[in-house]
Amino acid sequence: MIKTSHQQGFRLRRLLIGNPLSTEQMIHERLTKIKALAVFASDALSSTAYATEEIMLVLILAGSGAVKLAWPLAIGIAVLLAIVVSSYEQTIHAYPTGGGSYTVTHENLGQLPGLVAASAILTDYVLTVSVSITAGVAAITSVVPELYGYRIILALFFIMVITLLNLRGVRESGTIFAVPTYIFIALILVMIATGLGKWLLNGMPLAAPPKINYPATRDLTLFLILRAFSSGCAALTGVEAISNGVPAFKPPESKNAAQTLLMMAGLLITMFLGITFLAYQYGIVPSETGYETLISQLGRDIFGAKNIMYYVLQAATTLILILAANTSFADFPRLSSILAQDRYMPHQFAHIGDRLIFSNGIVVLAALSAFLVVLFGGETTRLIPLYAVGVFLSFTLSQAGMVMRWRRKKGKNWHIKAIVNGIGALATGIVLIIFSATKFIYGAWLVLLWIPLLISFFLIVNRHYKSVARQLSLEEYGNPPPICRNRVIVPIGGVHKGVMTALDYARSISEDVTAVHVEVDPNETTKIVEKWNKWGNGMRLEILPSPYRSIIKPLVNYVDKLDDPKRRDQVVTIVLPQFIAEKPWKRLLHNQTALLIHMAFVFRKEIIVIDVPFHLHEVKL
Amino acid sequence: MIKTSHQQGFRLRRLLIGNPLSTEQMIHERLTKIKALAVFASDALSSTAYATEEIMLVLILAGSGAVKLAWPLAIGIAVLLAIVVSSYEQTIHAYPTGGGSYTVTHENLGQLPGLVAASAILTDYVLTVSVSITAGVAAITSVVPELYGYRIILALFFIMVITLLNLRGVRESGTIFAVPTYIFIALILVMIATGLGKWLLNGMPLAAPPKINYPATRDLTLFLILRAFSSGCAALTGVEAISNGVPAFKPPESKNAAQTLLMMAGLLITMFLGITFLAYQYGIVPSETGYETLISQLGRDIFGAKNIMYYVLQAATTLILILAANTSFADFPRLSSILAQDRYMPHQFAHIGDRLIFSNGIVVLAALSAFLVVLFGGETTRLIPLYAVGVFLSFTLSQAGMVMRWRRKKGKNWHIKAIVNGIGALATGIVLIIFSATKFIYGAWLVLLWIPLLISFFLIVNRHYKSVARQLSLEEYGNPPPICRNRVIVPIGGVHKGVMTALDYARSISEDVTAVHVEVDPNETTKIVEKWNKWGNGMRLEILPSPYRSIIKPLVNYVDKLDDPKRRDQVVTIVLPQFIAEKPWKRLLHNQTALLIHMAFVFRKEIIVIDVPFHLHEVKL
Repeated sequence: MIKTSHQQGFRLRRLLIGNPLSTEQMIHERLTKIKALAVFASDALSSTAYATEEIMLVLILAGSGAVKLAWPLAIGIAVLLAIVVSSYEQTIHAYPTGGGSYTVTHENLGQLPGLVAASAILTDYVLTVSVSITAGVAAITSVVPELYGYRIILALFFIMVITLLNLRGVRESGTIFAVPTYIFIALILVMIATGLGKWLLNGMPLAAPPKINYPATRDLTLFLILRAFSSGCAALTGVEAISNGVPAFKPPESKNAAQTLLMMAGLLITMFLGITFLAYQYGIVPSETGYETLISQLGRDIFGAKNIMYYVLQAATTLILILAANTSFADFPRLSSILAQDRYMPHQFAHIGDRLIFSNGIVVLAALSAFLVVLFGGETTRLIPLYAVGVFLSFTLSQAGMVMRWRRKKGKNWHIKAIVNGIGALATGIVLIIFSATKFIYGAWLVLLWIPLLISFFLIVNRHYKSVARQLSLEEYGNPPPICRNRVIVPIGGVHKGVMTALDYARSISEDVTAVHVEVDPNETTKIVEKWNKWGNGMRLEILPSPYRSIIKPLVNYVDKLDDPKRRDQVVTIVLPQFIAEKPWKRLLHNQTALLIHMAFVFRKEIIVIDVPFHLHEVKL
Repeated sequence: MIKTSHQQGFRLRRLLIGNPLSTEQMIHERLTKIKALAVFASDALSSTAYATEEIMLVLILAGSGAVKLAWPLAIGIAVLLAIVVSSYEQTIHAYPTGGGSYTVTHENLGQLPGLVAASAILTDYVLTVSVSITAGVAAITSVVPELYGYRIILALFFIMVITLLNLRGVRESGTIFAVPTYIFIALILVMIATGLGKWLLNGMPLAAPPKINYPATRDLTLFLILRAFSSGCAALTGVEAISNGVPAFKPPESKNAAQTLLMMAGLLITMFLGITFLAYQYGIVPSETGYETLISQLGRDIFGAKNIMYYVLQAATTLILILAANTSFADFPRLSSILAQDRYMPHQFAHIGDRLIFSNGIVVLAALSAFLVVLFGGETTRLIPLYAVGVFLSFTLSQAGMVMRWRRKKGKNWHIKAIVNGIGALATGIVLIIFSATKFIYGAWLVLLWIPLLISFFLIVNRHYKSVARQLSLEEYGNPPPICRNRVIVPIGGVHKGVMTALDYARSISEDVTAVHVEVDPNETTKIVEKWNKWGNGMRLEILPSPYRSIIKPLVNYVDKLDDPKRRDQVVTIVLPQFIAEKPWKRLLHNQTALLIHMAFVFRKEIIVIDVPFHLHEVKL
């Protein structure tokens, strides 16, 4: 048998994304806590690489002096994080099969709130990829400013790499991501320890003056402070990832997931507060050019500019940020699949690819995030106002949902549990309002506009699938008469082996076969009729005139005349000879007319179009 | 009958490119001399807008003082033009059906030289579009320097507009192009007359010193002078357009075409020499920034910067340059069509679209030239070294071919005619060598590399079509046995109306129908078997296990087992239920699995794939 291009494509795919895995292998794909922390927490932890800087970037609008407010704001964010984590710890135990915001909200608050949560969180998954990747590229351009002009290309390259890694499936992903995540955690902790140590031992002056003196361009209003707080809340995105992914843990799933969540929260608070405290003590503020990140400045100050540790820190920061996007690559397809199974998203998102992952979701996520990177010029700061709105919306809904659940289910200590989730819902709800108000004109409006559009899409898809299901139902099928007349039309442009093959097939499926030639050149017709008399086996041949040299129009008119709408037991079949060349590029040299005819009829009712292949091979001339 | 999307697409096409024309209308599409000059000569005439500047841009490398050499070089180019035109005047009379370089060379020198000429001139058609459009945009940015940053977008926009105009067909094109061409000619002539008048009346000093003093960065070598000469030779491109297009003239075709050629040559020499002379006298040299063209500077000097005439001149220059691309849009598809009829290019280039033009050629030309514009950053000067190599190569070959023709055919005064063409071949041959030598490293190498590649493509296509013709020939057809067994497989994912429709069709074409279900979820299988017992009409249903959840693999294996390569009288048909939603975007919500199955089998031998449509409509829920 000849190898088809399908098989060749298959082999290339295998090379890039590995061999298929059987259903039984699924259980072994489960993650240990160590790997799970790397896969699910890289998003949350990596946001420490830019959260402090984003707070300061707002504060310096009121002059370098205002930067000292970063420290109390960071403490506020840490408290908020503790509240959210307590809330999600309860969700993990309540939903051992995966308690994503959509599931929890849908189940406890109803369809529409569920879809609001789903669209909010899907949007944030996309932004997580864009923000993490651009921040990762910023860590590179901090060391090599010459690359700043190539930041968009670099970001797109990394999105492509991470997409391929994810198409390989979740287990290898765990291994790939574990190493850089832990290197990053270790380095940030070492940096914080060294920084604190130097400060204590060498008697560093408390709160060095800011290295750059930015003049105040705005008043230090409450609005500005809240805006800075909102920017810092980007540190909280990704916290919900673990509760989404409970079934990916090794058993006992809930317990392992909850422990991982607490581990992550502890690390996140330590790193975020440590960085913010040291930046404030060392007088570090965002650079004027925007080429160098705050973390890079801090690393240079603490380790020394030419120190190997500084370069490792930058490399690890880049890696964890680029890999942080992986949280979304794990969760976006998973949520899409749930939505598709509930018939809110197209079927193709529901399928588990043969590497046990959700290929379509991965590809769509990659495309959307790449689009955002290009749209916002690869600048993290320009993306930040869009980021986290969705997360806080879904936090609020999901925790409100949990409160409803406790009220309904009762159970042991349900009052306390309801209060914990209630505080979570209230706190994140307030932050959501602050966020929307302070960031609205800076980009949040885009997300608040987009979410209703996405919900409408879900509802339209849902209505369509329901409508289809009703049409396909056999309940009112009755017993329509079987097809008893199949009129087969074979359009021919000449008489040759390809046509003979098509005619042979046509005769095998019906007694009623007519060959049809559209006459563009009368000389051609004479030749065809002559050959037909020799090879036509007595079949009918019709010649259709075409004064405008169009092949399609006369054919369509001819077929229209055959169509008898009153008879439901007859059908018209168009049989087209189709050349199949061995090499794909050679296929472009054939079948243009056949393709046009195919397209003209393929969406018509009661008409079937059949391409009968004639395989070509190279002949020595 | 429901309107299909094909019909809707058809209507949109009509709106953009007009109604179809019948074969009898073709003769009335012929061009008068006035219109023909506009259509075929706009390329050649418009090159006066940049040719002088391109000469000077090379000369200033040896300092502003060297610019005075532009005048003798321009005279040299004018002499060369006179030689080429005399040569082509003979070609027009010898080839009343169109004497393009390909036809003349192919007929008189053989296949390979013919293909060299064809690929050289096709390449130059593409470059004509790119060069003309970027030069036209430069005329705009001379007036509005703010638009300089948008030059690529502007150029692409104009290519799109001109493509649509050309898809409308040749007659309207003539009318559209006549007006701006004549306005441009008139304005340049008025400018030259005014400039000369001012100079004579006001006693302008002869040869004003150059306005900008460029320091010499190179020596004024013979090589540099010849390189400047080569750049100026861009003025000669387009001269062959008329000889290609003889059949487009009203009868008597040859006489009208020859007169138009002479008219064009006279205008071209007058305008080119006039501009070069005045630029030299007024001390005008290319601007430092590159934002303002030489013609724009000259126009400002002669008419005055705020004079309405200056703005009209710039507008007319832009228009004629943008429309000059039309020469290529008339000739590229024509030559492609001839090559396709000779089976050197894919069939689809041979077809005359229903507006009597060659739609595929137009679209390919637009795409290639747009690509070059983007590649060279929309800069005319960067494209110039690639330009005109092809033209001179085809000039030389075509005129050498004419010499051979006279030697073969003899006839009245054949010696003189052969000498005229011989001088033409010799002169253009020498220029070709100069061009290749002086421009090689500046970009000409790209063209000299590309031409052999294009020729290889022609030869490969030619061999493929010959091989196909042999395979299709019925000479050794014998009388293979007709198909007597058609095994029909209907893969099903459920039992519903869509599947019933497909089964109904399957049963109408064969007695041997088997429904096949690939089992991914055993619960699903139970349901299907239950429904099958009720609705299956006693047909066979096979359940195929799929441990890897792939739908395709088990199906392929199953069909492979059916295939008996020894029996030529049996065939396997795969019948797939296909949902056709009313709205095109809704079609994306269906048929993914069907499409995968279709793709897996469509290129296989002895297997026919049939999609049986099931039409969906919206149901009120």
